[in-house]
Amino acid sequence: MPAKRVAILSPVAWRTPPRQYGAWETVAGNIAEGLVARGWDVTLFATGDSETRGHLHAVVAKGYEEDRGADPKVAEYLHISECFEHAGEFDLIHSHYDFMALTYSRLVRTPVLTTVHGFSSPKIMPVYQKYRDGFFVSISDSDRAPGLNYLATVYNGIDLSLYPFQQSSGDALVFLGRIHPDKGVHLAIEVARLSGLPLLIAGIIQDQNYFREEVEPHLGGEQIRYIGAVDASGKNELFAQARALLHLNTIPERFGLVLAEANAAGVPVIAMDLGSCREVIEDGKTGFLVNTAGEAVSAIERLPEIDRRACRQRVQQRFSIETMVKAYEHVYETIFEREGKRS
Amino acid sequence: MPAKRVAILSPVAWRTPPRQYGAWETVAGNIAEGLVARGWDVTLFATGDSETRGHLHAVVAKGYEEDRGADPKVAEYLHISECFEHAGEFDLIHSHYDFMALTYSRLVRTPVLTTVHGFSSPKIMPVYQKYRDGFFVSISDSDRAPGLNYLATVYNGIDLSLYPFQQSSGDALVFLGRIHPDKGVHLAIEVARLSGLPLLIAGIIQDQNYFREEVEPHLGGEQIRYIGAVDASGKNELFAQARALLHLNTIPERFGLVLAEANAAGVPVIAMDLGSCREVIEDGKTGFLVNTAGEAVSAIERLPEIDRRACRQRVQQRFSIETMVKAYEHVYETIFEREGKRS
Repeated sequence: MPAKRVAILSPVAWRTPPRQYGAWETVAGNIAEGLVARGWDVTLFATGDSETRGHLHAVVAKGYEEDRGADPKVAEYLHISECFEHAGEFDLIHSHYDFMALTYSRLVRTPVLTTVHGFSSPKIMPVYQKYRDGFFVSISDSDRAPGLNYLATVYNGIDLSLYPFQQSSGDALVFLGRIHPDKGVHLAIEVARLSGLPLLIAGIIQDQNYFREEVEPHLGGEQIRYIGAVDASGKNELFAQARALLHLNTIPERFGLVLAEANAAGVPVIAMDLGSCREVIEDGKTGFLVNTAGEAVSAIERLPEIDRRACRQRVQQRFSIETMVKAYEHVYETIFEREGKRS
Repeated sequence: MPAKRVAILSPVAWRTPPRQYGAWETVAGNIAEGLVARGWDVTLFATGDSETRGHLHAVVAKGYEEDRGADPKVAEYLHISECFEHAGEFDLIHSHYDFMALTYSRLVRTPVLTTVHGFSSPKIMPVYQKYRDGFFVSISDSDRAPGLNYLATVYNGIDLSLYPFQQSSGDALVFLGRIHPDKGVHLAIEVARLSGLPLLIAGIIQDQNYFREEVEPHLGGEQIRYIGAVDASGKNELFAQARALLHLNTIPERFGLVLAEANAAGVPVIAMDLGSCREVIEDGKTGFLVNTAGEAVSAIERLPEIDRRACRQRVQQRFSIETMVKAYEHVYETIFEREGKRS
């Protein structure tokens, strides 16, 4: 039997895989490469500078976040429609393109699976409700909208080879993520000040006012440092210095790739018990779930209880690319069975 | 033979027809009503509060410019895709939805005609180039992009009954349009000051800085007044007071509905000789084409040469809904013939 042909529709905000930030593109890329490794015929719809061992199909040269000349609206309409215009060449379109791609899904015969990487606003929900009978995957049990035809929760998988195990703990607390109130950088700073421990902050500045008002005033000394955006090797340098990753998100986390990345390196995570954090972190085993900055300070004292090898093992079992891709294969088979019965 | 079924895809920025501003919706609505009057089976895809004697099909309740709760991106994706999902019910989709609708056009068998109401930015041109073999209509000979498969130029048509003929001239100069540098409000003010004539300015403020810096400082006295946005009856009140309409656009005009509206009321137009203005205004007969504010001042002295009845007659002949709809019928027949040969 010839290999099934799958189109992976990645966003075009960033390259796939992204150079630094870009969670949706990271996951779409990991799925594409994982499927190729397991013998699927994969076409990745992504920016022209993307990299894949499958077939790359691109009509947008660069990510619109990396190209000042680009118009995001134009890029998205051109890119998404291009994939659907080629629908006849595929047994399945696996979309990572949010509500926009759904609006093309009824115009093709090829089944469309949508991984919902997050509901960015209540305003987009009418589109999900209209297309609720489609095929959906959630990235955590907590990040689900009522009424959608979910086939499964499939946790995001990371490439563990990018995050080698760090034998021993560093001294610092580490914050890694977008500089935005949602990510609770201010709470990480509070924990650093209360505990007296050094804090390393890394990530793109998404909210300039927040950075200026809540982060910058605490910089300048030795204790709290901002080092900008980092790529995988930069993350590993941080993990080598890390006593723990602080992830004190203020809104429900959808998945939190960085939690799995830190755990993969053997770094325990102190995470706010909101959204998917309790699905990614096992409380007391791979980190601690807390509800306040004060609880986070107490959790720091309990870090020696954490077995760093157990952190990596849990990621290997649950959040590896292979685990993710096998789960998606199961979802794909479910779709092929249902479609087979329908035709 | 049963009536041919046409879908008119109107924008959802405003209601169709719009309450005040909204040129694209005005024209789409005029085409829909004109086709109904001539026996076509018309479905208007527009906002839920739109009005038509055809069938109204709506998934977006209100224009996103009139609904603070709306997300324009969501509204557009939902609205445009809804039309294409119903493509099988129509012999033709006549799109007024710019480049976005083009990206759905190859996913349906129904032919799609696009009236290009204007190229808003060079950034959208890659979409037009990709779909250049589709069917296109320009709204003036001057507003064409190279390489597109144009079937015709069809001038916009207005409902002349909305703009009754005003027997005699008023005293004032009138500016009617968006308050935006493109529309040359500052040049109209310069002409008023040089000529000493009163100037009435009406239209939505699209550029607040421009209004504050270039318009507001001249208000306050008796000579120059800003009266806000106006509907059709407000326009007629202005036309009754008008000696001439000043339309000193600073970039090429695409069509300029207001030029035809003023002429319909018998009001001569002094227009910048840029873009389509010389297609709409016949120099020396229905107004004057000028190149500078100084030339506009000189043109004011020549206004008595203009026969107000000739202004209205020219609009009746060239820019009426009936003339427009007959021209579109011709375009539609061309498409049906070509499609017939293809199948």
